[in-house]
Amino acid sequence: MARSTAGESVLQRATRILEVFDVDNPAVSVTDIAARANLPLSTAARLVDELVDLGLLARDPSRRVRIGVHLWELASRASPTRGLREAAMPFLEDLHAVVGHHVQIGVLDDDEVLFVERLSSHQAVINVTQVAGRLPLNASSSGLVLLAHAAPALQERVLNRPMRRFTAETIVDSSALRSFLAGVRRNDAAICPGFIHDDAMGIAVPIRDRTDRVVAALSVIVPRGDRPSVHLGALRGAALGIRRALDRPGLIAPRVLADGTDCNEVTPIE
Amino acid sequence: MARSTAGESVLQRATRILEVFDVDNPAVSVTDIAARANLPLSTAARLVDELVDLGLLARDPSRRVRIGVHLWELASRASPTRGLREAAMPFLEDLHAVVGHHVQIGVLDDDEVLFVERLSSHQAVINVTQVAGRLPLNASSSGLVLLAHAAPALQERVLNRPMRRFTAETIVDSSALRSFLAGVRRNDAAICPGFIHDDAMGIAVPIRDRTDRVVAALSVIVPRGDRPSVHLGALRGAALGIRRALDRPGLIAPRVLADGTDCNEVTPIE
Repeated sequence: MARSTAGESVLQRATRILEVFDVDNPAVSVTDIAARANLPLSTAARLVDELVDLGLLARDPSRRVRIGVHLWELASRASPTRGLREAAMPFLEDLHAVVGHHVQIGVLDDDEVLFVERLSSHQAVINVTQVAGRLPLNASSSGLVLLAHAAPALQERVLNRPMRRFTAETIVDSSALRSFLAGVRRNDAAICPGFIHDDAMGIAVPIRDRTDRVVAALSVIVPRGDRPSVHLGALRGAALGIRRALDRPGLIAPRVLADGTDCNEVTPIE
Repeated sequence: MARSTAGESVLQRATRILEVFDVDNPAVSVTDIAARANLPLSTAARLVDELVDLGLLARDPSRRVRIGVHLWELASRASPTRGLREAAMPFLEDLHAVVGHHVQIGVLDDDEVLFVERLSSHQAVINVTQVAGRLPLNASSSGLVLLAHAAPALQERVLNRPMRRFTAETIVDSSALRSFLAGVRRNDAAICPGFIHDDAMGIAVPIRDRTDRVVAALSVIVPRGDRPSVHLGALRGAALGIRRALDRPGLIAPRVLADGTDCNEVTPIE
């Protein structure tokens, strides 16, 4: 009942419409939605009307369309990242108070880092990440920590395809990446001066669960000239605190690796 | 194309499925999804399959279904509450450091308070709220602040229907509520000892935007025996800081009142 003549379902089309919105495009006209979702205008208009009726989208006074409060509510109240974020937040706050720069938590999703929580400072150095934002695994300190502990199949996939360059320091060569990942495992941290922005340095450590699996990366973004050792102690302490907090019964365990391996799947802690 | 024989669209059914999940039910079997969404098992199974394919739902190893990371990502990266949360977070952190108990931000949505951000402490007094959780307007300090500044139509609606009681102190009588709301406007704060839990006191102040509209409530939950004046200064300071931060160009303005009045709608600040 839900297939269009093009063989595409209503849910696929509705999802494509939701995917039009992001931090740079929070409010979009129906015409632009149709163009960006590659849908006929009449189809886009009908689906947007229905999504607005359901509260999943909302219209502003200028008739532009936005993500609706109800969609945010549905996604947040049972969010797969909720357990991790709740366990981590007190430690993230402490770390933020000590470091005074951006601190963030990222998880592996779809061969990228997805940042699920972030605390920022007005006076902090530049940082390209944002909550629900993504970065490539080869470029960000969080991505390199997650990649270093990822399943071999995912590592090979990333190593054998073109890697995105941000600066002259970004690792885009597979043998350099292989040796950097070995260093991350040896030092239990990724230290990345100028990998994404010339003036900034990302430092990330793994967050492990009680079975020692790496479930997320905890990182700070500091000025490039800082000495990493100054920040590593605070990072490691916070990661250990989060591990302890993750061990509370009933918490939703974070997803680990999105590459089809065993540790890929949600493990309920109950 | 998307209507079933019962006259209900695929999107309506899919939304009902998403509504099955909440903080108490993060992982649900397809059988339970069908029962709670009031759908035939075969319909529920087919829609769940499709939602899993789209990443909006996910299956765990025990075949139970959860909210998918992609749904959280879509809702979060262009979230209608994102601007408010980003502007507020640094001040929420400072307030949390000073008060040492739960601090939270709530907005008016569908005649209730919807909590969009929260920082909690392990040693804090009990608190029934959670991020993306809701409370009635008559009972919570945040709700009373929002109601005191809401459109008259919404106030009348709340005043003229049965109100939910949590404790002996909860206001459930319309004339008592009317006079309490007048006090909230006079004092620019709601002080609510034991309204929701016998041992706790909620204290809330309004967050205003640059046009002086109340767009959210900022609250702390402290032990009932605390002197409110100790916390009010920190709350008011944080609310003023958030107002200033909301004034940054390009920020997504928060929704205000969900009752069909003028100030109800999203006002883009651009």
